Amino acid sequence: MKVYFDNAASTPLDSKVIEVMDHVIKKVHGNPSSTHADGRLARTIIEDARRRIAAHMKASQGEIFFTSCATESNNTAILGAIRDLGIKRIITSPTEHPCVLNTVDFAKTISEVDVSMLSVDQKGCINIDALRSLLQKDARPTLVTIMHGNNEIGTMHDIASIGAICYDHGALFHCDTVQTIGKYPIDVSTQYISFLSGSGHKIFGPKGSGFLYVNTDNVVRPLLHGGGQERQMRSGTENTYGIAGIAMAMDRMVERREMFHDKVTVLTQRFKSNLELMRIDVGYNGDPQHHLSHIINLHIPRTDRAEMIMMNLDIHGICASAGSACNSGAEQDSHVLEAIGLPKARKSLRFSFSHFNTEQEVDYVTDTLAQLL
Amino acid sequence: MKVYFDNAASTPLDSKVIEVMDHVIKKVHGNPSSTHADGRLARTIIEDARRRIAAHMKASQGEIFFTSCATESNNTAILGAIRDLGIKRIITSPTEHPCVLNTVDFAKTISEVDVSMLSVDQKGCINIDALRSLLQKDARPTLVTIMHGNNEIGTMHDIASIGAICYDHGALFHCDTVQTIGKYPIDVSTQYISFLSGSGHKIFGPKGSGFLYVNTDNVVRPLLHGGGQERQMRSGTENTYGIAGIAMAMDRMVERREMFHDKVTVLTQRFKSNLELMRIDVGYNGDPQHHLSHIINLHIPRTDRAEMIMMNLDIHGICASAGSACNSGAEQDSHVLEAIGLPKARKSLRFSFSHFNTEQEVDYVTDTLAQLL
Repeated sequence: MKVYFDNAASTPLDSKVIEVMDHVIKKVHGNPSSTHADGRLARTIIEDARRRIAAHMKASQGEIFFTSCATESNNTAILGAIRDLGIKRIITSPTEHPCVLNTVDFAKTISEVDVSMLSVDQKGCINIDALRSLLQKDARPTLVTIMHGNNEIGTMHDIASIGAICYDHGALFHCDTVQTIGKYPIDVSTQYISFLSGSGHKIFGPKGSGFLYVNTDNVVRPLLHGGGQERQMRSGTENTYGIAGIAMAMDRMVERREMFHDKVTVLTQRFKSNLELMRIDVGYNGDPQHHLSHIINLHIPRTDRAEMIMMNLDIHGICASAGSACNSGAEQDSHVLEAIGLPKARKSLRFSFSHFNTEQEVDYVTDTLAQLL
Repeated sequence: MKVYFDNAASTPLDSKVIEVMDHVIKKVHGNPSSTHADGRLARTIIEDARRRIAAHMKASQGEIFFTSCATESNNTAILGAIRDLGIKRIITSPTEHPCVLNTVDFAKTISEVDVSMLSVDQKGCINIDALRSLLQKDARPTLVTIMHGNNEIGTMHDIASIGAICYDHGALFHCDTVQTIGKYPIDVSTQYISFLSGSGHKIFGPKGSGFLYVNTDNVVRPLLHGGGQERQMRSGTENTYGIAGIAMAMDRMVERREMFHDKVTVLTQRFKSNLELMRIDVGYNGDPQHHLSHIINLHIPRTDRAEMIMMNLDIHGICASAGSACNSGAEQDSHVLEAIGLPKARKSLRFSFSHFNTEQEVDYVTDTLAQLL
């Protein structure tokens, strides 16, 4: 049996996404910057995609910019805010995605920006009071960058409250929503968010597609300079197929949001019940009260068998993850698990689900886990 | 009749490119950074693509980095060379693509870099002696950035000689080969090139795919920071479909290079002969001795009818260009035509061809031109 339980790393494409990409790949070859009929056809697809994505988060169409991935979106927002909006301090947390943390680290090498790290507790939650206190104590222009849902352990942050605190203190708020956009409601017309990043390939859309929401109050220069596409915000010929794909992926994800959560909740609960019945010594990372419905991050004793578990799951046709896939290549210590203080004696595994998965797959994986441990 | 003569702006996809992209879109959903079977399958596709693209230009596999477009490649090379390789001066020309010129302009705002502009003659050729002289007079660390083939007027630069002069004077050489890669032989094992950019969608491959060749002697930091993909050179989950597509596009372009040139040469000659027979007052931009075989850039008297020509060609189903499509949106004065000193009394049109075009299409377009003028 072949089981894909690594949907937090990347997802298979939705059939409607495949359909629209196939159409654009075969039929729409114009350059969207060309003024002739073939160019206008490509342009229409892009602007229609922009309108739909904006509507899903109650943004205005002019606030959505297409990028090649959320990493590019996050780099654009963070580096732009420092360079063009006078940001002197960044407040972030140690459980952010590497594309935020490494961009912040890079920013320190090319600017005078200071970085304050909020600590997280064992559940991966930041302390909202600590954030408020940091902002109260120091009035320098600040960008707060906190993700919505953690890609490794699944902890969700209360971004409405974080945004409100930023607003009260005149700070900008950047939010990486790669694991949540489409899956959870986000409304930028009522929530204070300055920059928001999303990606296609985590919501059954294409790799190579992302977007950046930039609130109209914030004008930053682009990361890529050139022909002035995306209203001067992102040069480079637009990836028409990817843009058509990410818009369809958003439509489908929003449409089927409840079905998705219902389905993955059944699967994750069954997964945990099965392990409980098997009396495996297992604990769960993350915040049970505020958790991404599609991620289970569990920990088991770090025995010899546990050390081999990823390889053995792979041999049994099971795709799962020891940490985040975006940390290139081989298994390595996770900065998130270190931040939450998971004891070295425990080994962590991430299983992440989609509505394409089945209960039969869950039973196969938990049976295999029991057998391997 | 519908005719697409704007292949310098973007190309329809080759059938084999569509085939491989379709396969990857439907069957390969793993994250290439995942260590499990689905991740390794995606990784294999990327490394195989890298090997093939490297081979076509006699680079080593480790010198090719995938990007989202040539604009990103050019930004990465130019900004990286200034930031990380101590470049104090850039030598370029006014006919470069906006993604080079605007990146250089941006670099001036964030660094101390000086810029020397080589002038071009009426054919769009730079003066090689002027380049040599500039390099001789001033020993500051220099990056020369000169494109291989001009996207608007088709003039080709002798990049082997330019590279040799750069090498002799210890300068780095960056070359934008978007209009030539695959179509003309480039051999980095014998030609001195420090950085080279290519794009998928100009060679019947996908939009959203590009690559950057970085000679192993030059270590620059990435433009995008994050998970450390592309061996730390380009973070962001890889666009597996686009990468599979651009590699197939390169294979096919190289395989069919002679057929391509033969075919478009027949078409461009017929185009010019037809206009000559019709006694239209037409001149040609570019260097007839060193010209991209697939581009005709002509100029006609700027009459009222000429001013309406793009719109009227469009109405007749003909896709062509007044300048470069990458200059977003509406018709505007071309920086290239200004640089070569085309008189304001002449209006320029670009027709760019592919092996998919036919002689019948040429006749239809020249007939329509005659009728409209």
